[in-house]
Amino acid sequence: MNLFTFQNLQKQLDFIHEIDKLKYIQRKTRLFNSDRHENDAEHSWHLAMMAMVLAEHANGKIEVLKVIKMLLVHDLVEIDAGDVFFFDTNNNHDNRAEEQEAAKRIFGLLPEEQGAELIAIWEEFEENKTIESRFANAIDKLEPMMQNATNGGGTWKEFNVSRSTVIEKKEDMKNGSENLWEHALKLLDECLEAGNISK
Amino acid sequence: MNLFTFQNLQKQLDFIHEIDKLKYIQRKTRLFNSDRHENDAEHSWHLAMMAMVLAEHANGKIEVLKVIKMLLVHDLVEIDAGDVFFFDTNNNHDNRAEEQEAAKRIFGLLPEEQGAELIAIWEEFEENKTIESRFANAIDKLEPMMQNATNGGGTWKEFNVSRSTVIEKKEDMKNGSENLWEHALKLLDECLEAGNISK
Repeated sequence: MNLFTFQNLQKQLDFIHEIDKLKYIQRKTRLFNSDRHENDAEHSWHLAMMAMVLAEHANGKIEVLKVIKMLLVHDLVEIDAGDVFFFDTNNNHDNRAEEQEAAKRIFGLLPEEQGAELIAIWEEFEENKTIESRFANAIDKLEPMMQNATNGGGTWKEFNVSRSTVIEKKEDMKNGSENLWEHALKLLDECLEAGNISK
Repeated sequence: MNLFTFQNLQKQLDFIHEIDKLKYIQRKTRLFNSDRHENDAEHSWHLAMMAMVLAEHANGKIEVLKVIKMLLVHDLVEIDAGDVFFFDTNNNHDNRAEEQEAAKRIFGLLPEEQGAELIAIWEEFEENKTIESRFANAIDKLEPMMQNATNGGGTWKEFNVSRSTVIEKKEDMKNGSENLWEHALKLLDECLEAGNISK
């Protein structure tokens, strides 16, 4: 290979090496029917699979490759910035500055153009305005709900999160997929009926 | 949503629930610079990231979405059929019949057309004949080499696998990517020099 290709490859391999660390970032939620916490790499894989399989439920026609790319990279910034629990009322997911720094460092390992492309995809996901990012965010919100529903209330019970709080913080799922939001409400109702979440 | 869409969604959610089990399938290889074994879900995420980032190194123009789909689903059959170690000389990766049964059961959870599409993608990966599947297989073979190289020889040392055996069993990587094969040989040479693999 020529020098330019060789240099690109070196940078890409450095990036591939670095992102292995995503496998160590532990989430609050647990695997389905399980006590074991999920890590960010497993989570990202599962979301990419969901995007692939559930694409027909997006509110409009989506570019599936873009959604999958978003979901594969969406948590990489947590390698530096850590995982903030979705229902954490102190932090309230507001570690934007740290996440921006992390994105610069981690995607900055790649060849310039490629790094810029992935930062743009990550920012699109974060802004949650396009049809693809809305669908990706809906999926990111649905997976832990499915996990909690199989774990007797999971983090909702553990951290005393009510059904109305979940609805308030997750309702924008319907902007990505009305079908998935309908299912999410069904999960909440079943949990309420089983006494695994408060009103 | 209408009844047809609702029924599709139920099947898709059953599939999404079932594939959580991939997170429990432990591989022989370990994370980069680590003693912890990798599981199949983390592995599949990492390979999909590699496909995304290394696409320019495929031997020809590839459809990236297809390669990513292949890599996301390539190990799902191991939920039923288990992981066979690549250098296992007894089994020699010959559990095709079990894997076929597993594919039928697991992808069979999906709506018929969707299940058939994913079985076809998995079979294309296994047959390793198209440009996309060759590139996907090259990536699947490269990741554990990168891990072993950072783990003082890793599974090569642990199971006494020689450099010449690795070359014999992995050389077809070059049909997917000459660049990645060139890098793989470099990793092997470095390991040999450091005394972490035998000739």
